[in-house]
Amino acid sequence: MAQFNLEFVEHLPLKERAALVSGKDFWFTAKGDQYPAVQVSDGPSGLRKQANQADALGVNQSVDAVCFPASSLTACSFDDDLLYHLGQQLGIAARAEKIAVLLGPGINIKRSPLAGRNFEYFSEDPLLAGKMGTAYVKGVQSQGVGVSVKHFAANNRENQLFTSSSNIDERTLREIYLAAFERIVKLAHPATIMCSYNKINGTLNSQNERLLTNILRNQWGFQGLVMSDWGAVADHVAALKAGLDLEMPGKGKYSIDEIVDAVRDGRLDEATLNRSVLRVLKLVAKFAHPKSPAATYNKEQQHDFARHVADNSIVLLKNEGQLPLDNHNSVAIIGELAAKPRYQGGGSSHVNAHHVVTPLAAAPKNTHYAKGYSLDGNDREQDMAAAVKLAQQSDQVIFFAGFPEEMETEGFDKSTISLPENQTELLERVSMANDNVTVVLQNGSAVEMPWADQVPAIVETYLAGEAVGEATWDVLTGKVNPSGKLAESFPLRLVDNPTYGTFGRDLHNENYSEGLMVGYRYYDLHHYPVRFPFGHGLSYTSFDYRDLSVTESKNDVTVRFKLTNTGKLSGKEVPQLYVRNQTSRVVMPAQELRDFVKVELAPGESQTIEFHLNRRAFSWYNPEKQQWESDNGTYEIAIGSSSRDIRLTKHFKLTIGEEPTEAINTESYVGDVLNSPDDKVQTALKKSGLQKVLQPLAKSDGSAIFLNMPIRSLVMMGIDPEIIQRFIELTK
Amino acid sequence: MAQFNLEFVEHLPLKERAALVSGKDFWFTAKGDQYPAVQVSDGPSGLRKQANQADALGVNQSVDAVCFPASSLTACSFDDDLLYHLGQQLGIAARAEKIAVLLGPGINIKRSPLAGRNFEYFSEDPLLAGKMGTAYVKGVQSQGVGVSVKHFAANNRENQLFTSSSNIDERTLREIYLAAFERIVKLAHPATIMCSYNKINGTLNSQNERLLTNILRNQWGFQGLVMSDWGAVADHVAALKAGLDLEMPGKGKYSIDEIVDAVRDGRLDEATLNRSVLRVLKLVAKFAHPKSPAATYNKEQQHDFARHVADNSIVLLKNEGQLPLDNHNSVAIIGELAAKPRYQGGGSSHVNAHHVVTPLAAAPKNTHYAKGYSLDGNDREQDMAAAVKLAQQSDQVIFFAGFPEEMETEGFDKSTISLPENQTELLERVSMANDNVTVVLQNGSAVEMPWADQVPAIVETYLAGEAVGEATWDVLTGKVNPSGKLAESFPLRLVDNPTYGTFGRDLHNENYSEGLMVGYRYYDLHHYPVRFPFGHGLSYTSFDYRDLSVTESKNDVTVRFKLTNTGKLSGKEVPQLYVRNQTSRVVMPAQELRDFVKVELAPGESQTIEFHLNRRAFSWYNPEKQQWESDNGTYEIAIGSSSRDIRLTKHFKLTIGEEPTEAINTESYVGDVLNSPDDKVQTALKKSGLQKVLQPLAKSDGSAIFLNMPIRSLVMMGIDPEIIQRFIELTK
Repeated sequence: MAQFNLEFVEHLPLKERAALVSGKDFWFTAKGDQYPAVQVSDGPSGLRKQANQADALGVNQSVDAVCFPASSLTACSFDDDLLYHLGQQLGIAARAEKIAVLLGPGINIKRSPLAGRNFEYFSEDPLLAGKMGTAYVKGVQSQGVGVSVKHFAANNRENQLFTSSSNIDERTLREIYLAAFERIVKLAHPATIMCSYNKINGTLNSQNERLLTNILRNQWGFQGLVMSDWGAVADHVAALKAGLDLEMPGKGKYSIDEIVDAVRDGRLDEATLNRSVLRVLKLVAKFAHPKSPAATYNKEQQHDFARHVADNSIVLLKNEGQLPLDNHNSVAIIGELAAKPRYQGGGSSHVNAHHVVTPLAAAPKNTHYAKGYSLDGNDREQDMAAAVKLAQQSDQVIFFAGFPEEMETEGFDKSTISLPENQTELLERVSMANDNVTVVLQNGSAVEMPWADQVPAIVETYLAGEAVGEATWDVLTGKVNPSGKLAESFPLRLVDNPTYGTFGRDLHNENYSEGLMVGYRYYDLHHYPVRFPFGHGLSYTSFDYRDLSVTESKNDVTVRFKLTNTGKLSGKEVPQLYVRNQTSRVVMPAQELRDFVKVELAPGESQTIEFHLNRRAFSWYNPEKQQWESDNGTYEIAIGSSSRDIRLTKHFKLTIGEEPTEAINTESYVGDVLNSPDDKVQTALKKSGLQKVLQPLAKSDGSAIFLNMPIRSLVMMGIDPEIIQRFIELTK
Repeated sequence: MAQFNLEFVEHLPLKERAALVSGKDFWFTAKGDQYPAVQVSDGPSGLRKQANQADALGVNQSVDAVCFPASSLTACSFDDDLLYHLGQQLGIAARAEKIAVLLGPGINIKRSPLAGRNFEYFSEDPLLAGKMGTAYVKGVQSQGVGVSVKHFAANNRENQLFTSSSNIDERTLREIYLAAFERIVKLAHPATIMCSYNKINGTLNSQNERLLTNILRNQWGFQGLVMSDWGAVADHVAALKAGLDLEMPGKGKYSIDEIVDAVRDGRLDEATLNRSVLRVLKLVAKFAHPKSPAATYNKEQQHDFARHVADNSIVLLKNEGQLPLDNHNSVAIIGELAAKPRYQGGGSSHVNAHHVVTPLAAAPKNTHYAKGYSLDGNDREQDMAAAVKLAQQSDQVIFFAGFPEEMETEGFDKSTISLPENQTELLERVSMANDNVTVVLQNGSAVEMPWADQVPAIVETYLAGEAVGEATWDVLTGKVNPSGKLAESFPLRLVDNPTYGTFGRDLHNENYSEGLMVGYRYYDLHHYPVRFPFGHGLSYTSFDYRDLSVTESKNDVTVRFKLTNTGKLSGKEVPQLYVRNQTSRVVMPAQELRDFVKVELAPGESQTIEFHLNRRAFSWYNPEKQQWESDNGTYEIAIGSSSRDIRLTKHFKLTIGEEPTEAINTESYVGDVLNSPDDKVQTALKKSGLQKVLQPLAKSDGSAIFLNMPIRSLVMMGIDPEIIQRFIELTK
């Protein structure tokens, strides 16, 4: 291939350049004499390379590929090493299929449990989403395949997603909705970013220069290409100007003409076009794989890896001693999801799975199956009764429940997070018939569980990929000691969510009025009970936390403690570090996840865990000054096995931030002035004569009111404005 | 006095005009040869005319005046007739004291239970605050005394109130925070409005032209004068330009000089100054009372009226049969608040009360008193023990509890809404000693009551004015059948409030991120349990609701039902009408109070109640179009004895609003287009050929996703953009 640079681009005919900034079709970039077309493909959880009839919706069959667990499950691993290896395997598959760019990962924040695409996203927490995404991207790109990190940005609902405006205050945008993108861009250098359909504060993202250029490129240093989500471009010329490089898919001649015309009319500067053309060509040069890679790869090995990922991610939500199963017991398997599992999401992430192993197929001996409810809702009482009877006759019941596929997919939002009624009715009957019911959940996002107190054990498998059956039994039987932790809060009731009643209600606007208070940040602030908190997940062994120390050094804060496996089984734990900031005088969540690590320990084994927190861990985004700020003062470090199972806490004084003092001016409050720790202020109070006149007022009956006045208002108390001016001058 | 007009003003010397737009001092306007000074006075609940040393904080003694119940209690009357008479009495007192303008009522919305000045405000609901305020203002002004409706606007916290910015979206501002002001301005024509200290969305209210001129005068038609809250002017010239007329208090020579200099420098247009000067002079002309009124008025009569107001406002929160008291029983009176009641708020509304009757002084026979706890916190175990012993020996206990005065006053916000610990500890001991404990509360705002289940009866008296003792016993003994209804929600826990954790946290900004969801609008939307809901209040009799009908006519909707007193006592009830809007496709509270009425019925008596709802009752404020809109469609009318004790509901179709259809454009969604009820759209679909190409897609597997696409994106599905354009043209 040629050496692509601006000079090369400038010599290309206008029409050729216009062709390059749109896809040739659904999956390919335009081809030229001096460069090939490259193919992109859906598939954050497995390839969806479409050989024949292309579509954006996952309707038509794609090539055979291993289906890995969905991101809703993989995030529960809290294991970036695992995500790196998952990325590697996807990269291997993509390379084998001659895919240049894999369209993933999706890292949007789970703001509402109703959002239709939550199954494809990692978390409600930006740090977790960012760390998982960074590892995944590094893994894919280690194989010479690019990624497209999506959907940039604040694309948190599906209904009217092409036009609705995500209205978000700047601080929330930076701290919650952009933070994971920022981390991945800065640490993993993704080849491309996919621009989402929606608007932010009224501006279509595909035409949002501030988002696509100022923030992404100028502030974060992004060097790659920005492509559109499929159909997200409304005005291609405006999009190019804003910093979008590649419109996907192309609209053929129509796409080319509109660019050519715009250049000829003077509506589009050639330099703007050339900039994007060059980015497309650089992408092609980097990922076209001119030397044909191996056309095959080991899918059985990948299947085993898919099982391994699920093993390390499935979350044991509740266990009153039922699990792991005693293999001498007879076990009833109830629920059609055991035979027809939900193991992947619908829409563009849908994979033509290589080899699905259902829970029923993977079931051990001593098990018997009864369908019970029907996924299509055509229940027969005789099936129900047979399931209840089987439950009565068995020592243990494994009840498979979950959301049927039509309930959650890309393209529309859910209206409920309850299990279908036929499932809960059967569960009620089964749990009356047998005390030892374990519910195994298959679903893409948080479930309301009013029935949770009626069953002794609950296992969350989300969408576990094609090895769903094997992984489920690995955990149930204890072959694998579960170590997953919830990457999202499970509320007691949907109505408890801060977006309830407003999410999706407005056709044109989605107001992010809860601000920073997403997920646990909201529930914790209000002390609301939840069904299962963020970061929660049980193990078959137990862990002890002790000896917390917090030490500040020149550039960071080191947090150390000792973790010990105090049980009888080897196991993995995810200690989570939360920072509690009561120092900054701006709105703050009660606590925020600032680091975590996955650790494996043999029985009795101990390990000293060390976290290093940089200034950002104590920072908030100041929209007025347009910068991150950390305030010196006292913070609390909380170490927990979940966000609500905090084992160790310690306060410490941060001194590597900035002093949160403000300059004295006429708006400064009397109380703040009188109590200022600043010697200069105290001296100025004396020298100016202000102290003398303030003191009697500060001791009066109304002093509380008086202290809550700005010094400019002292004039009405009869104080000479010149004294006040003199005082302010002296503080400078 | 001269005839004041612009010509008159233009002939006044500049210095004299400059003097007129500031107060001469704390309470007087400037005096000239051709006009007198007039006096203004604090006192929404009774005059605070200061004869000697003036101050803004209520520190120094004022003239003897009757202290009426605070607005937090009077609003519970839900009785605008009563509020009109209260206004009249205040007007009589003001006139007797030669007061031109009474500084009240305060009508700000109770957004957070922690807000320090809630005691002085009416409600969390703008309709209730607006109706109470309107009646009050009409009453005062019927006596030839002006009012100053305060604090305009969105002044909902005390900490940093001089500088903090209330950041509110436009729709919330209009529907919640301005609505009561709008009603009063339009219906009661108040003489003046008092501009508050705070900023709205970054602009200081005293310099906010949009607020003080565009909205207040141009949109609402306000003809009166705008004065500043005491010390709210930071830049007098900017304030005059924005539409503020009178700076209070004056800063003497300093105030005059800054205006004179500004005019001379050309920074202030004389016409702007003259406009405000004329407004001041017109106020003087209207309210100066040149003929000296009677110097005295009947304070004993006013005391009786204060009692009457409290009688009709006190809220019976809980009653398991203890009340009314049986006069054969022995009654223990416990708690120092019985002897030293809290009956009024602190700060600028503090009245030098004419004749306070404490609950202890008004106690009937058969009662014995034990102090128990001490208000100053210096508790003695012997006092506690004596109270417990007295409780043991008595048939009934009346336990007086509440917030001590230093806990809530103007000038700072609360940090808790719990009763002091010494009170709750004693209450615990007393309720163990006696099963028949009635708690009587004295407080300015909502109280957290974790102890509520332990006592069989609770009476809320708020700050009941100087007749507190008489009114309390009126209700306890059944001399008066209670009829008050809560004008604010009492949450189970402070943390349940939507502003919890964020209120007052930021020094410079108060983000109204809960938007419309204030008070019951929030609790109802999320189905959160509350301790006592908005509109709640019990009676000693019972009421039956039946025969609800809803009929639409040309300009309004008539709601009719039959109310019957089914008990054995005469009593008053407050039927409340809530509108539930699930039609408008914008965010909506679950229900909103749209009308109410107070009705007195003899035992067995029935009355047909009729409400007339105009279009506004179904409207929301569209910030894009800057107008109120009501959408045609189905609404539910709910009639209740409280917001959560709904007795009757009925759906009806509104047709006097606007059709909520939107014009078809490239952003229109495929689903909306295909399902459009508009014949023109259906014809265009056929004629353009679009229907033919859409139909197969609409029937495909991915149809849900497809229907959720705008028609502009059809190009990527291979549909010719010209067909789409043709279709849009045909719909026009």
